[in-house]
Amino acid sequence: MSSKYLSGDKAALQEFLNKFDTFLIDCDGVLWSGDHLFDGVPEAIDYLHSQGKRTIFVTNNSTKSRADYHKKFQKLSIKCTPEDVFGSAYSASIYISRILRRPADKPKVFVLGESGIEDELRAENVPFVGGTDPGLRRDVTPADFAALADGSALDPEVGVVLAGLDFHVNYLKLATAYQYLRRGAVFLATNCDSTLPMNGSFFPGAGSVGVPLVNMIGRQPLELGKPSQAMMDAVTGRFHLDRARTCMIGDRLNTDIKFGIEGKLGGTLAVLTGVNTKADWEAEDAVAVPAYFVDGIRDLRIE
Amino acid sequence: MSSKYLSGDKAALQEFLNKFDTFLIDCDGVLWSGDHLFDGVPEAIDYLHSQGKRTIFVTNNSTKSRADYHKKFQKLSIKCTPEDVFGSAYSASIYISRILRRPADKPKVFVLGESGIEDELRAENVPFVGGTDPGLRRDVTPADFAALADGSALDPEVGVVLAGLDFHVNYLKLATAYQYLRRGAVFLATNCDSTLPMNGSFFPGAGSVGVPLVNMIGRQPLELGKPSQAMMDAVTGRFHLDRARTCMIGDRLNTDIKFGIEGKLGGTLAVLTGVNTKADWEAEDAVAVPAYFVDGIRDLRIE
Repeated sequence: MSSKYLSGDKAALQEFLNKFDTFLIDCDGVLWSGDHLFDGVPEAIDYLHSQGKRTIFVTNNSTKSRADYHKKFQKLSIKCTPEDVFGSAYSASIYISRILRRPADKPKVFVLGESGIEDELRAENVPFVGGTDPGLRRDVTPADFAALADGSALDPEVGVVLAGLDFHVNYLKLATAYQYLRRGAVFLATNCDSTLPMNGSFFPGAGSVGVPLVNMIGRQPLELGKPSQAMMDAVTGRFHLDRARTCMIGDRLNTDIKFGIEGKLGGTLAVLTGVNTKADWEAEDAVAVPAYFVDGIRDLRIE
Repeated sequence: MSSKYLSGDKAALQEFLNKFDTFLIDCDGVLWSGDHLFDGVPEAIDYLHSQGKRTIFVTNNSTKSRADYHKKFQKLSIKCTPEDVFGSAYSASIYISRILRRPADKPKVFVLGESGIEDELRAENVPFVGGTDPGLRRDVTPADFAALADGSALDPEVGVVLAGLDFHVNYLKLATAYQYLRRGAVFLATNCDSTLPMNGSFFPGAGSVGVPLVNMIGRQPLELGKPSQAMMDAVTGRFHLDRARTCMIGDRLNTDIKFGIEGKLGGTLAVLTGVNTKADWEAEDAVAVPAYFVDGIRDLRIE
């Protein structure tokens, strides 16, 4: 199967647009890289809306809540409502509050991550520790080793470890999360992206921040971001989407494109502004092959 | 092959001791757990010396230099000389200074680790950055993302990344190390132990501190600690050991015991005071099976 290149091909673009009502759009690497907005993004989104299309922003980045994202979209003049943003922090919080059966005496979540996760857990009334707690943003001490080993530094009500992207990851947090996992906590991850596109380069992603825990405990977390179909079910269920007339747009084969294909969406579109290149899906062992690709999302606009 | 249990069996112990001149002895999990010295350790080492045996302490823990280790041994009343300690920081430094061919314009090492590595690199006249530099012991900032992405925060003379155990690991250090690796730096590790025995429990080991880099860059480092035979060659070469009359004593199957077996030593002895249990080497897929085992190193003393 080969991917159809749409940039600059008006007829092919029109045919592509006719096939779909809804576009699920990844953020990092598609709309922006860090704080750098790619050229023509607001105009491309406006164009899709002018053609009667719905846009839903589906991101694995858990550092921001839906409200935070909405603010970022407004600042960058990309039109959306808070309801049109679906992040892995939200996906994970819904899973914990509505699907996961937590023991009554262990309802709390230990968070490896930023305020976006905390905000979404709070919105679902899920109690948590860790996260942005300043008490954990410091060097490990000999007293910590003792108190973690004997359990006195641990909250006995924690029954879940949720690992996401944490820009303040340190030895103390990793050691604490590990002790909860050793004691039987359920191991969840907002997502497992190895890298995060930022400033035109790449930085440690949630999967790389959390992989020390995987390495220590010897098992993988249940992932609640792309390409997990738990997230797809949540997205399509909430927005009542017709999967056949929905297209996933993203830059990563192993998250975005795989997510769309495994979710049996009508199509997948890769953009070349992020992690993966054409050579990646043309490789023999490609993890997923997009149905379409463009150089950047701005090329979706037929002028 | 089954392992022979020696604790309390005088005849078997005597036969065991008669077979060896030299014992290579792991430290964490064998002599101590963190700052907790196991019962009877100094006496057991004295006993081995009284029987004409040589003891060499071979540790993967890179946080301490040989001199630091010697101080710890003295404090705990375990007899040894600084020359009888062989750590992975020393092993890595020797490899970098004497074996690795570094390009003339990229002689520097970026260190993910503590002062033990720095001391050993300094002793071998290897220039380095990173390590305990207070400039990296802080939160990542938007300016860091920009300066790492455009390379202005990087030292152009760095050609090697050496990952060891770092109790001050953080996002900024991981992001910096990753940028050097992306630009082609040689990827070395002092060791890849997933956990570190401390205070009777386990904490993140060097392998877990460095695994985010492996996850991001998609390749393994060259390991210079146990079970790497680069370390075995260095140890046996330096001490002119007869491998057939040398026994490795340790608590980890995948480092210590594997190290001794692959190094074709005369024997391997497991102790049950650290990471692995009898069930681990009796499992069908055991990574290595020790020839002998005791409950703790103190049981080597025939009273």
